[in-house]
Amino acid sequence: MLDQRLLPARIEYVRYDSAAAVAAGIKTMVVRGAPAIGCAAAYGVALEALRLRDQPRDAFLAGLTHGIAALAASRPTAVNLFWALDRMRARLDTLSLRALPVAEIADALLAEAHAITVEDVQLNRAMGTLGAALLPHNARVLTHCNAGSLATAGHGTALGVIRSAVEAGKRIHVYADETRPFLQGARLTAWELMQDNIPVTLIADNAAGLLMRQGSIDAVIVGADRVAANGDVANKIGTYSVAVLARRHGIPFYVAAPLSTVDINTASGDDIPIEERAAAEVTGYGDTQWAPAGVGVRNPVFDVTPAELVTALITERGVVCAPDAAKIAALVAVRALESRS
Amino acid sequence: MLDQRLLPARIEYVRYDSAAAVAAGIKTMVVRGAPAIGCAAAYGVALEALRLRDQPRDAFLAGLTHGIAALAASRPTAVNLFWALDRMRARLDTLSLRALPVAEIADALLAEAHAITVEDVQLNRAMGTLGAALLPHNARVLTHCNAGSLATAGHGTALGVIRSAVEAGKRIHVYADETRPFLQGARLTAWELMQDNIPVTLIADNAAGLLMRQGSIDAVIVGADRVAANGDVANKIGTYSVAVLARRHGIPFYVAAPLSTVDINTASGDDIPIEERAAAEVTGYGDTQWAPAGVGVRNPVFDVTPAELVTALITERGVVCAPDAAKIAALVAVRALESRS
Repeated sequence: MLDQRLLPARIEYVRYDSAAAVAAGIKTMVVRGAPAIGCAAAYGVALEALRLRDQPRDAFLAGLTHGIAALAASRPTAVNLFWALDRMRARLDTLSLRALPVAEIADALLAEAHAITVEDVQLNRAMGTLGAALLPHNARVLTHCNAGSLATAGHGTALGVIRSAVEAGKRIHVYADETRPFLQGARLTAWELMQDNIPVTLIADNAAGLLMRQGSIDAVIVGADRVAANGDVANKIGTYSVAVLARRHGIPFYVAAPLSTVDINTASGDDIPIEERAAAEVTGYGDTQWAPAGVGVRNPVFDVTPAELVTALITERGVVCAPDAAKIAALVAVRALESRS
Repeated sequence: MLDQRLLPARIEYVRYDSAAAVAAGIKTMVVRGAPAIGCAAAYGVALEALRLRDQPRDAFLAGLTHGIAALAASRPTAVNLFWALDRMRARLDTLSLRALPVAEIADALLAEAHAITVEDVQLNRAMGTLGAALLPHNARVLTHCNAGSLATAGHGTALGVIRSAVEAGKRIHVYADETRPFLQGARLTAWELMQDNIPVTLIADNAAGLLMRQGSIDAVIVGADRVAANGDVANKIGTYSVAVLARRHGIPFYVAAPLSTVDINTASGDDIPIEERAAAEVTGYGDTQWAPAGVGVRNPVFDVTPAELVTALITERGVVCAPDAAKIAALVAVRALESRS
């Protein structure tokens, strides 16, 4: 995995060969971004299967169960993690676990992880094509955190929509919130967009309100870590502030997320667990610490934006304007119908 | 001057002996905070006078004029700077510039700078006593940037109100926004409050909305760099976001500022110049740079909160609820009446 903690200063890859190691990589944010975490978890299961492919069948299956549990315990908020693990478990369930050679089970799990990854790029492309229409030519678009290639298997969710708009010939100028405390905007979004020659201006999170008040922002687009059944959106801490400001200024607020991010089993945003991380992320950055030693800290790293502030949810199955429980239920029901047929 | 750029890691003082050097200290933020900048500018004029006290009268007066101009050009937004320079000029105007020995003019200017500084502490004490009544016992109070002892000659404006409430026996828990990009909250507010044993929890600016939504904030109090005639408030970048969030959650939003911060000659917030500072403040902090080299940046360091979002303006002459042009004009007119009598 590309170690995203070191970007953009250094491009270094970390090798993994077990579910426990991948779980540690997710927990320590070597990889982050809801869809990317899902792909990483799927590969974590596959790597565990490959690691145990020479073990007796019972040890192999027990090890897999243990590895899946370790991955599920890595981070609590992004639902794609659980979605990907459920899908890997479902793939296991279709196999003849008592008859098929262990090595073939492992190969099937690896193929499933590959499929999840390939599909993620396809879904992002679809979201991009469907969502790009929402961004006018010459739009100045604010984004928060990183919902780009680095947060997915490729193309990106929020940045995927921007990329698709640019590919369609529109000129888009992106304003990237730096996104304290982990600085995904400053380090990852700015870097990604510069690689693609998409104009980007970096701002402190605190500057978003002023820019909106000055009329410098035409639209906001972000990704999501979990969308509840009623359309409430959990995303990187600070997303809620941006949504409240956008509403005050009549600026559309878009959320781009595949249906794997929609958690129909979570009724509302109030039911989404919000991860709190270490104080050291807030008292400084990396080895540089600037706050007084011993200061009390709260570091919730996600917040919830209520559905009423979301202008539209951009999914691979179309744009849902003013998302609510009925619209989301309809979308999920049609998907279920189709997957049965 | 205490070098606030090094706090809380190091306590170092810088010595100044000319207006130009003090102007450079203000510009590079050795000292910051609107009232503290006012005091520093007054001392800058006095130091220039002391430096030139052995010069011929014409060189002395020309040098003073030059020094005042350098100080006035140091930073654009905080009006206390211009207020203090106006007051030093007014003191000069009362002196017999053609007759009084140059050394005595210098002594009079030094005395005026001392007076401004002593008065600032008195005004902060008065604001504290008047404003403390607004904070309930056990209040959880969010503040942004640093409006404390370090931003004034002592006691503080926003933190002065909190200190006075604590002195009055109330238990107050402060949540301090870290205040990117210059981190005045993380470095200065957290440090000041810890010195005084006032409980403080540091948060990323992005977390304010979540805490409000969770019901963890009872009031917001901030200082100001300039209050326009209609009650609009220029303050540290990000203040506007906090005010918008507070309004959404029905949380009172208080601004503590002496009348020297009220600029009756600026009609509204739209007329307040907003300083933009170097990109390096946003691309990293100090020697640590984390954004990709060459990224475009905007770094406005103040924003404007419209008067309609201000629950009350706390001044040394009393609390102005729902400030507007008429109330501010009345307050300023009474002060003018009294100073004539």
